[in-house]
Amino acid sequence: MESRVNTLKSFFEKEKLDGYIIADEINILYFTNFLGGARLLVSGEGESVLYVYGVNYEDAKETARGCRVELVKMDEDADKKVAEQVKGSRFERVGFDCLDASAYLKFAEALKDVKLKDKEKLIWELRKVKDETELRHMRRAAEQTSEGMKAAFETIRPGVREYDVAAEIEYTMRGLGSWGVAFDTTVASGVRSAYPHGGCTDRKIRKGDLVVLDIGAKYQNYRSDLTRTVTVGKPSPKQAKIHELVREAQDRAFQRVRAGVEACDVDAVARGLIEKEGYGQYFVHSLGHGVGLDIHEPPTLRPGRKDMLKVGNVVTVEPGIYIVDFGGVRIEDTVLVLKGGAEKLTKCSYDLRVG
Amino acid sequence: MESRVNTLKSFFEKEKLDGYIIADEINILYFTNFLGGARLLVSGEGESVLYVYGVNYEDAKETARGCRVELVKMDEDADKKVAEQVKGSRFERVGFDCLDASAYLKFAEALKDVKLKDKEKLIWELRKVKDETELRHMRRAAEQTSEGMKAAFETIRPGVREYDVAAEIEYTMRGLGSWGVAFDTTVASGVRSAYPHGGCTDRKIRKGDLVVLDIGAKYQNYRSDLTRTVTVGKPSPKQAKIHELVREAQDRAFQRVRAGVEACDVDAVARGLIEKEGYGQYFVHSLGHGVGLDIHEPPTLRPGRKDMLKVGNVVTVEPGIYIVDFGGVRIEDTVLVLKGGAEKLTKCSYDLRVG
Repeated sequence: MESRVNTLKSFFEKEKLDGYIIADEINILYFTNFLGGARLLVSGEGESVLYVYGVNYEDAKETARGCRVELVKMDEDADKKVAEQVKGSRFERVGFDCLDASAYLKFAEALKDVKLKDKEKLIWELRKVKDETELRHMRRAAEQTSEGMKAAFETIRPGVREYDVAAEIEYTMRGLGSWGVAFDTTVASGVRSAYPHGGCTDRKIRKGDLVVLDIGAKYQNYRSDLTRTVTVGKPSPKQAKIHELVREAQDRAFQRVRAGVEACDVDAVARGLIEKEGYGQYFVHSLGHGVGLDIHEPPTLRPGRKDMLKVGNVVTVEPGIYIVDFGGVRIEDTVLVLKGGAEKLTKCSYDLRVG
Repeated sequence: MESRVNTLKSFFEKEKLDGYIIADEINILYFTNFLGGARLLVSGEGESVLYVYGVNYEDAKETARGCRVELVKMDEDADKKVAEQVKGSRFERVGFDCLDASAYLKFAEALKDVKLKDKEKLIWELRKVKDETELRHMRRAAEQTSEGMKAAFETIRPGVREYDVAAEIEYTMRGLGSWGVAFDTTVASGVRSAYPHGGCTDRKIRKGDLVVLDIGAKYQNYRSDLTRTVTVGKPSPKQAKIHELVREAQDRAFQRVRAGVEACDVDAVARGLIEKEGYGQYFVHSLGHGVGLDIHEPPTLRPGRKDMLKVGNVVTVEPGIYIVDFGGVRIEDTVLVLKGGAEKLTKCSYDLRVG
């Protein structure tokens, strides 16, 4: 934890910062090992201060690393205390990660002589590259997720409701020690599969349906993301054809993932193939996104994004084709970027047909 | 949905607004019935425009009510489109709900002649009062939650891991049609029960442990919130005494809930009793909070909050006492504010002892 704070501080000179206000709870977790802080103030010189309301104070004192924990009483305002500390430290330039407009305007008012700079990107430069501890947690989350998908395959049959499938997925992941879901489980069947973020409903799955299963477990606050699409019973020729195309696009894009490649290039491999086959208009989202403590992180794999992939990035590769009134197919794995290639953290059959 | 937008518009004259930019996804859901919008621009005169990225566009066209749906292409910026529309409409004063600092600064730059005003409170004035449809969903979420708690009581025994209890709770709620969890399930046992937001771990529950169970189901995007604390086997005299005190504080505070009472007054009933008995320093959080589409909403029941409770508010009542190295007790229900009193939406035994 302290080495992460030190890495952040190592940017201060170049960025001309004296301090940095971290407001995002997950960023605070990343730097202190504690989830539930209100603000973390990192000083170029001297100790970091974690501001915590009473509800989490005892837990923070026990859990937080590399910082002094300061109680914010029920009638106090954390931002006011941070502003006082910034003033007392005579900081002139202070970075921040992500304040909402009201908090920003309050700081700007209280710190008239201080330049406040949006420096969220500095933190993402760190968080984008996962260390060994993080990867150990992410592998475990991915294993739980893969087992959840297998449970879905065993559960899906005509007459079962979407939310019953979700129940089995989540029960299986929990039983393997998951800390909960990484995001709302999607079990989208029939025409609902045409909507990429379909959630779950009480719809009964029917023979011949396409079913998009987009699931993820969380472990030690790290997340995983896995999608498979199946048909209940024998697929139609059109279902099979689209599935094969998405599968091929996903595989080719995966083969392209490695350190030194630009994010948009990986997207282009999948998008190019899908466009060539005449389905370009139905691939309505990015190819993928970073995953870690958050479910959507940089880098984003999409047209125009020049971010160079690095060893230790963890990203999803998830092309999809969605046709209204017909259905959708998406195939996704969470993958780790390596020097000459990539490793799939999620591992699960790509078979189209279940039941 | 359209009547909600019209109610928002009815504030415009008094607030001197020509338009309102809604950025929060849940607020957009509240006004359009659609979850997944990027921005909603409400105009004092003329139609509202919902800006949606391609990934959700088809779904939005199908689902969104009372607005025109406009596609934001992959290489476009939703805020840029909103700013252009604001300019074209010659608005002079525009409210917003909750922009992050970067988005706010971009709007301020693009709309130099427009006054941007944080008017989040207007939306909360609406959302705080639940209508019949909302209450139907909240009752269902509360029923699922109450059944989840009963499943926990049946599962807890010495040797069972915290996350296994969470698995049974969530499986039960899903089986009743829940859309997922309202927040991360807490099963905090033994000394961990002293930390109000304890989550779940692989810790095995032991005989004599206090176990805090804080759980909630989500249904139709509406949430519920319920806490019980149990001991595994016979409670110690100290455990029993603290539990009885928290139970009495919760009941007295619940009896105080009704339309026309100030939020801080309800808090004071519970806090006063706990202080009188000498445990004031261990009640380290607010008495309660609003619940609805979000898990933490206004009004907050805490010292100093003068908000007058209204018919249709849904709030939690949840006093707690947390003693490090001993354990914690919290008891919580989600309750609906009525004219002369209140109704518990969550319904579940208060017994301390299980197993």
